[in-house]
Amino acid sequence: MEELSTAARQYSRENAERFRLELHEMLRIPSLSGDPAHAGDIRRMAAWLDEHMRGLGLDNVAIMPTAGHPVVYGEWLGAGPDKPTVLVYGHYDVVPALMEDGWHTDPFEPVEKDGKIYARGATDDKGQLFIHVKALESYLKTAGRAPVNVKMLLEGEEEVSSPNLVPFIKEHLELLRGDVCIISDTSMRSIEEPAILHSLRGMTYVEIEVHGPTDDLHSGLWGGAVHNPALALVEILGKLYNADNTIAIPGFYDDVVPLTADERAMIAKTDLTEEQYKASTGVPAVWGDAAFNIRERIAARPTLDINGLWSGWTGPGPKTIVPSKAGCKISSRLVGNQDPHKIFELLKSYVASITPPTVTVEVRLITTGKPALFPFDIPEMQAASLAYEKGWGATPVFTRGGGSIPVVAEIADLMGIPVVMMGYGLDDDGLHSPNERFTIEMFHRGIETAIVYLEELARMTDQ
Amino acid sequence: MEELSTAARQYSRENAERFRLELHEMLRIPSLSGDPAHAGDIRRMAAWLDEHMRGLGLDNVAIMPTAGHPVVYGEWLGAGPDKPTVLVYGHYDVVPALMEDGWHTDPFEPVEKDGKIYARGATDDKGQLFIHVKALESYLKTAGRAPVNVKMLLEGEEEVSSPNLVPFIKEHLELLRGDVCIISDTSMRSIEEPAILHSLRGMTYVEIEVHGPTDDLHSGLWGGAVHNPALALVEILGKLYNADNTIAIPGFYDDVVPLTADERAMIAKTDLTEEQYKASTGVPAVWGDAAFNIRERIAARPTLDINGLWSGWTGPGPKTIVPSKAGCKISSRLVGNQDPHKIFELLKSYVASITPPTVTVEVRLITTGKPALFPFDIPEMQAASLAYEKGWGATPVFTRGGGSIPVVAEIADLMGIPVVMMGYGLDDDGLHSPNERFTIEMFHRGIETAIVYLEELARMTDQ
Repeated sequence: MEELSTAARQYSRENAERFRLELHEMLRIPSLSGDPAHAGDIRRMAAWLDEHMRGLGLDNVAIMPTAGHPVVYGEWLGAGPDKPTVLVYGHYDVVPALMEDGWHTDPFEPVEKDGKIYARGATDDKGQLFIHVKALESYLKTAGRAPVNVKMLLEGEEEVSSPNLVPFIKEHLELLRGDVCIISDTSMRSIEEPAILHSLRGMTYVEIEVHGPTDDLHSGLWGGAVHNPALALVEILGKLYNADNTIAIPGFYDDVVPLTADERAMIAKTDLTEEQYKASTGVPAVWGDAAFNIRERIAARPTLDINGLWSGWTGPGPKTIVPSKAGCKISSRLVGNQDPHKIFELLKSYVASITPPTVTVEVRLITTGKPALFPFDIPEMQAASLAYEKGWGATPVFTRGGGSIPVVAEIADLMGIPVVMMGYGLDDDGLHSPNERFTIEMFHRGIETAIVYLEELARMTDQ
Repeated sequence: MEELSTAARQYSRENAERFRLELHEMLRIPSLSGDPAHAGDIRRMAAWLDEHMRGLGLDNVAIMPTAGHPVVYGEWLGAGPDKPTVLVYGHYDVVPALMEDGWHTDPFEPVEKDGKIYARGATDDKGQLFIHVKALESYLKTAGRAPVNVKMLLEGEEEVSSPNLVPFIKEHLELLRGDVCIISDTSMRSIEEPAILHSLRGMTYVEIEVHGPTDDLHSGLWGGAVHNPALALVEILGKLYNADNTIAIPGFYDDVVPLTADERAMIAKTDLTEEQYKASTGVPAVWGDAAFNIRERIAARPTLDINGLWSGWTGPGPKTIVPSKAGCKISSRLVGNQDPHKIFELLKSYVASITPPTVTVEVRLITTGKPALFPFDIPEMQAASLAYEKGWGATPVFTRGGGSIPVVAEIADLMGIPVVMMGYGLDDDGLHSPNERFTIEMFHRGIETAIVYLEELARMTDQ
């Protein structure tokens, strides 16, 4: 079977430039899932993928409706029922991007510069999902077949936490069922240090809004005797943390599975130095719970971050008001075995308990996602390790990921299969930030790795 | 001289509707001083006043340039040098107003409803400055002369704290010089309880901005080991107050002149009940320094209010970032003898002292204004009291005002004259808030009171 992948890899090299130009087409579509104004762009993006996969010879290609944005599905099952089936999951939606956030070029007009493609979605996740489309194309256009069966499940709501994906999977469980799920939506520290993620954090995302006076008040005529809602919010938010930077919500850590000494030793090998961390982020000093090292803090421990804050007048010039309200968005990253809904209830109760009688407070649940954790000594994971060795050219490490892909735990639970996260991005690709980018070499090495993975999976079942 | 005011008052009644329609014209011009996009509207507003005052027979009417928005000047000096000269100060600029803030009708299309005129600037200060224009017109169009000399000084930058007015007054001191300055830009508690203000608070207005990572970061990949700038801001703002709602900045209260027992007794007569205060503002409970009653807190004590707060993502849907920065606008209302620049230095030093090494913080001074305090047993104040009795029909109280009109202390200092603040608005007119309004009856009674005041001032000098 070596020959199949050899020809496919050769094909992927010969077509490298065209592959990139096709990716540029995807990146030009501002498929923001969180903004109703971009619903048309979401539909355009789905139509583009539908047409593209049909052109490659996939079967059953369809734009399948959900209660929100559609799923694009396609399959190639020509390897037959005695071969394993790989379910590839990716998402074609992106988070917002505005020039004034600090982009150097139009976020939706891809630019190749210094070996990187700059555009919103370049690495998260259009570039990475396209790796699997192009890997399958490379087999189908050379041997006319692939070593295993492949199903593509491409969703359009990952960036708004996949509200409709679980109902969709439940409804189409037989159509989607595979033996292993592959997701490329994560990253590695450097190009020579590929990583396979065996754990992801979950999430509880809330909005808190504090209400005081009915309308904004003149601060001179009314201030001094009204509890400024922005101050009340500040006081509430200040009480969410302890002085040692741990989270003060009673019961918050109760269900956290303690890290074992072995796991901590493995994580320590991939830890960041304070200098590396400062260089990557630009912060003047690191911060956090001193009982854990940096890698543990950002991947194996739960967090609580303020994602947005608003109140009163934020335009140019002074405006002397007591604002009528103040609000914030907060996301808590969770680890096994924290339950997102239980964490929401704990947060809500705690905020209620610290709300003074001078204001009213509303805590709204925006979205949740369960944490996920897989063993890494199973064949599906080991095949991935071999694929990096042969296809990428470096031995990968198994690591925990700090991010959240809510569907990972759901797919694992619903299908009873492992999810292998082979991320082809870099930790500092700027995803969700201005000037998001994807390294061109990693795009091409990723396609070759994905090609080899399908072959290694097939070999695994032959043994 | 009674006859002069009798005819003038009669004229003002006969022309009441026209006066209001003229005011509507002013209110249709969105003369926002804090937003460069409205510079053309500021010029239109100044031109309207210039043309209007020329039409009434004022002399030396001119749009006089400053380094910012122009002053509109006009005078009538026909009473002669043995009569006193009244300098009327008003401002033709307004604060921003957006429908989405909660306006029920277009803020720049005045609507008369339930005896009130709804529009941005209705009471602050277009409606109130126009009272003096119409009072002078009522004399000039009946007797052909007024009992005293009048100078009109109408500025366009009050809502951005009059950055160019003091240089303007210094440069044109002889042109502007009067024996007393009258300002109508304040309010009373109810229509039958007119108030003359003898004190105003000053102000120090700042912006604080906290900087963390260079760009917004993905909260999953980097959060937990970076001090979230929004959290750092929250922690800093939380430390500006003590648990008893007093301000924690060291030295903040050092220069506050203590209220005497006599003053406190006078203020107690005009205090609000907690129920009145809640009904006027809509807050669930009052707040503040329990050592002072409500009226003292909002008029005779210094404050520190958060006027605006911003960080990260505030649009629809979740976005999981650690924001690169967070900021706020803060205004501190000051009382005699606090110095606005000293307060800025104290605030800046304190913030620097509580800033952790994990972020950097910038404290920017936006604007300042000195507090003002006048005795109320002087003839210029007593003439105002008589004017309310005869012209308004009720005996006024002398009170302290919680707001800030920075130019009051400056005019008093530069000319060595008292400033009499005869406000014709209501405390709950919603100035700086949605649905700002001005009571039509108060507009017309204000014109009659202003007519009588000029006569009482003349009488005072005859004695």
